[in-house]
Amino acid sequence: MTTITITAQELAERLGGALLDCPPERPLSCVMPLDEAVETSVSFLANAKYHDKALHSGAGVILCDPKTVLEGRPRLVMTNPYWGFAQAIALLHPEPTPAWCEAPIHPSAKIGEGCRIGPGVTIGANTVIGAYGVLHPGVHIGDDCVIGEECEFYSGVVLYRRTRVGDRVRIHANSVLGSDGYGYVMVNGRHEKVPQVGFVEVGDDVEIGAAVTIDRGALGPTRIKQGTKVDNLCQIAHNVQIGEHCLIVSQTGISGSTSLGDYVTLAGKVGVVGHIHIGSRSIVGGNSVVAKSLPEGSFTTGFPARPHRQWMESQAALNRLPGILRKLAKKVAEE
Amino acid sequence: MTTITITAQELAERLGGALLDCPPERPLSCVMPLDEAVETSVSFLANAKYHDKALHSGAGVILCDPKTVLEGRPRLVMTNPYWGFAQAIALLHPEPTPAWCEAPIHPSAKIGEGCRIGPGVTIGANTVIGAYGVLHPGVHIGDDCVIGEECEFYSGVVLYRRTRVGDRVRIHANSVLGSDGYGYVMVNGRHEKVPQVGFVEVGDDVEIGAAVTIDRGALGPTRIKQGTKVDNLCQIAHNVQIGEHCLIVSQTGISGSTSLGDYVTLAGKVGVVGHIHIGSRSIVGGNSVVAKSLPEGSFTTGFPARPHRQWMESQAALNRLPGILRKLAKKVAEE
Amino acid sequence: MTTITITAQELAERLGGALLDCPPERPLSCVMPLDEAVETSVSFLANAKYHDKALHSGAGVILCDPKTVLEGRPRLVMTNPYWGFAQAIALLHPEPTPAWCEAPIHPSAKIGEGCRIGPGVTIGANTVIGAYGVLHPGVHIGDDCVIGEECEFYSGVVLYRRTRVGDRVRIHANSVLGSDGYGYVMVNGRHEKVPQVGFVEVGDDVEIGAAVTIDRGALGPTRIKQGTKVDNLCQIAHNVQIGEHCLIVSQTGISGSTSLGDYVTLAGKVGVVGHIHIGSRSIVGGNSVVAKSLPEGSFTTGFPARPHRQWMESQAALNRLPGILRKLAKKVAEE
Repeated sequence: MTTITITAQELAERLGGALLDCPPERPLSCVMPLDEAVETSVSFLANAKYHDKALHSGAGVILCDPKTVLEGRPRLVMTNPYWGFAQAIALLHPEPTPAWCEAPIHPSAKIGEGCRIGPGVTIGANTVIGAYGVLHPGVHIGDDCVIGEECEFYSGVVLYRRTRVGDRVRIHANSVLGSDGYGYVMVNGRHEKVPQVGFVEVGDDVEIGAAVTIDRGALGPTRIKQGTKVDNLCQIAHNVQIGEHCLIVSQTGISGSTSLGDYVTLAGKVGVVGHIHIGSRSIVGGNSVVAKSLPEGSFTTGFPARPHRQWMESQAALNRLPGILRKLAKKVAEE
Repeated sequence: MTTITITAQELAERLGGALLDCPPERPLSCVMPLDEAVETSVSFLANAKYHDKALHSGAGVILCDPKTVLEGRPRLVMTNPYWGFAQAIALLHPEPTPAWCEAPIHPSAKIGEGCRIGPGVTIGANTVIGAYGVLHPGVHIGDDCVIGEECEFYSGVVLYRRTRVGDRVRIHANSVLGSDGYGYVMVNGRHEKVPQVGFVEVGDDVEIGAAVTIDRGALGPTRIKQGTKVDNLCQIAHNVQIGEHCLIVSQTGISGSTSLGDYVTLAGKVGVVGHIHIGSRSIVGGNSVVAKSLPEGSFTTGFPARPHRQWMESQAALNRLPGILRKLAKKVAEE
Repeated sequence: MTTITITAQELAERLGGALLDCPPERPLSCVMPLDEAVETSVSFLANAKYHDKALHSGAGVILCDPKTVLEGRPRLVMTNPYWGFAQAIALLHPEPTPAWCEAPIHPSAKIGEGCRIGPGVTIGANTVIGAYGVLHPGVHIGDDCVIGEECEFYSGVVLYRRTRVGDRVRIHANSVLGSDGYGYVMVNGRHEKVPQVGFVEVGDDVEIGAAVTIDRGALGPTRIKQGTKVDNLCQIAHNVQIGEHCLIVSQTGISGSTSLGDYVTLAGKVGVVGHIHIGSRSIVGGNSVVAKSLPEGSFTTGFPARPHRQWMESQAALNRLPGILRKLAKKVAEE
């Protein structure tokens, strides 16, 4: 990948903020989260919850708003730091043009021994397919992907650029790995796009059902660790981290930046909000909505999800409620 | 498009109804909704709610059942006017055969300057692609589509015939625009198809996620206005109208003929019933079901959706209910 | 298909169990459910609910655990019979390698008269397409499928091997028929795959929307009978049986081995658990979760689904509950 470098001063001019406690000539060449940022990184703070991370971040400059107290830290102060962040990504991480040519399989792609590749498959530049892979007709793999050995992808599977897949991974028809995360920032009454420049990483022995969508990280990976099985029509948003040997049953949706431990089961049609953690060995009952982090070994159900037993009792009570209210009304009338 | 014209008398003979207050030789060449119909139009009234529209419709003939009072209006009286409507569409708006040829890109298609078209892309007859479009490998665009400038469609995107897309529209992998709406009419114990002959219209700067389905209108458009962003795995049914700058989060479903104002947010997994209106700047919480029209600026949650605060209170109360019922039972036992 | 035959003794050695009441030289060549098994079949009992079926099964050998009482029945006793079942399928029903060649349409495929086949379509070995079929660009049909007459499949439709489709079936873009069911068995902390070797069977006059996923049976068919209409983004799991003339509305999910009678309506976003039966002419309201079998003609709503009227009353009561609790608290304080 091409590296673009600009100075902190140039960044301030492009984004329109005030540079404080930062050498104007400092070179900046990437955008990174607060806790991973280094001196050449731009980072940002838009949620007070992460203030502590900002205090200890190694970022070369932190985008923040005028109310944020970060004395002594290198910072670029602006009204809408999230919009600054979006612009900084566009500036430092422009997406390269896809490298198609006439040939469906790009000449720079490396296909391992024993691979079987159906008609209508396209493979992008610099992509590597491990040995004994089976790509059914009409699979589309973008540039710069790395696929392990003995993988089988069914027709219509689409991998966006830079997707990384382990060994013995099966992906069923029409699933999508690496689509853009749903990230926008409101600027002057319009939803401006936050560029999504991360990638998807899938571990060994993962199986993914049909018509699943897994968005790539805004920055860095959306990750599914080894042995996890994802059923049909699930949605996994940007920067989600799923542990090992989880079961994600059909039509479940997991919102951005949420993490799951190992051996978690999300039964069918579960919804999980963003930015929470579900502890290892947790079970969430079908059709439930998880709105808060859950400890290890939890068993919850409902909308919102609550301990399973509590939910069962409350539903039983709810069924009795109309009758009880009728009796109460009668009693009051009699008194 | 070929125009087919038949007389009111011929229509009556084909559909088997009684023609009243209508010149039998009146020429008819299209099927239209009551409020858009002109003298050459067939329209229909199957829902008493629209009786007033029928009274003021300019339709050349209105299909209605024997109980409907429409004295003086040109009408064709039949037991099942919805079935008549389906047959009239099949008669007057037959779908043309797709115009494929050997060439993946039909010779009559017009590709704007600077377009990049991946291997395995197919483009139908008379379709126009604006300048600087990027069509990733394996995009399929039907006949008679009009695509604006600087659009990017990822692999596996399918546009049915007559889809219209504005400028700078991004559509992620495996999304479908223009599939048939879910419209059937029960005739002799079978679900007969109501032909879906409308189209999908998407405004400028819209972004559509992966594996989204947007059905074309039964007649006329399903419309998504400029600046709206639709997340992965959403379903947008026939004749839905979505305003400007809305956010439709993942796995949401909107039923037929419902309309949304501008700046509406439907959080993840929301369901919306058909034939209602959600006012501008409304927010619907995740996993909620909207069963009635909502005024501007509303904030609702739940199944069915109710004011957010009310839903929060009722869930809190529900959690306390089993304990309260136990105490009441004990108290009654003690009295 | 190739037939593989092993003796009961060999099976016992491979799977590691104790063979009882079974001639060791008995030839075994298929895996079948208890109630369909014949003398050359391996079957299994892992759920006490099916004990009676095991007693009357004609299976050549039944895999079961040491606690199961099946005196006199030919059986192979092991700690994890479900894992034995998975291994037996892999042994006796290995999936053949797909038979692609350079040609997108395999030379052994039979295409009926008057078919229209778009560019980019691939058709597998031995597949038969009935007369007057329309396959839009980019349809992928696997080996050994049988498609009836006058079918229309839109772009991106994927049919896995051995799918059977009746006459006049329409399948909209990017739907998948025949993907593997979600079947795993936990062995030493890992989810081992239960091979899915069944198929999908769709009756005449069925219409399937866009981006629908229908998994093939683990053994035998997942079946959708004639006249049924399935809307966009629905999930139909392995071995589900759907009767005639049902309506399955958008984003509904039906779990494994559940059966529906005829004329059942599942409104949008319904979830149905596995291994239950929904009686004919039942209606399930939108967004409901069906957790138990339902009798003919039922009308249920809610999570979990209950009689519609009861659900309406309980929701109305729930809305009143916070106010009532406040009044009760006040009254108690006053007493």
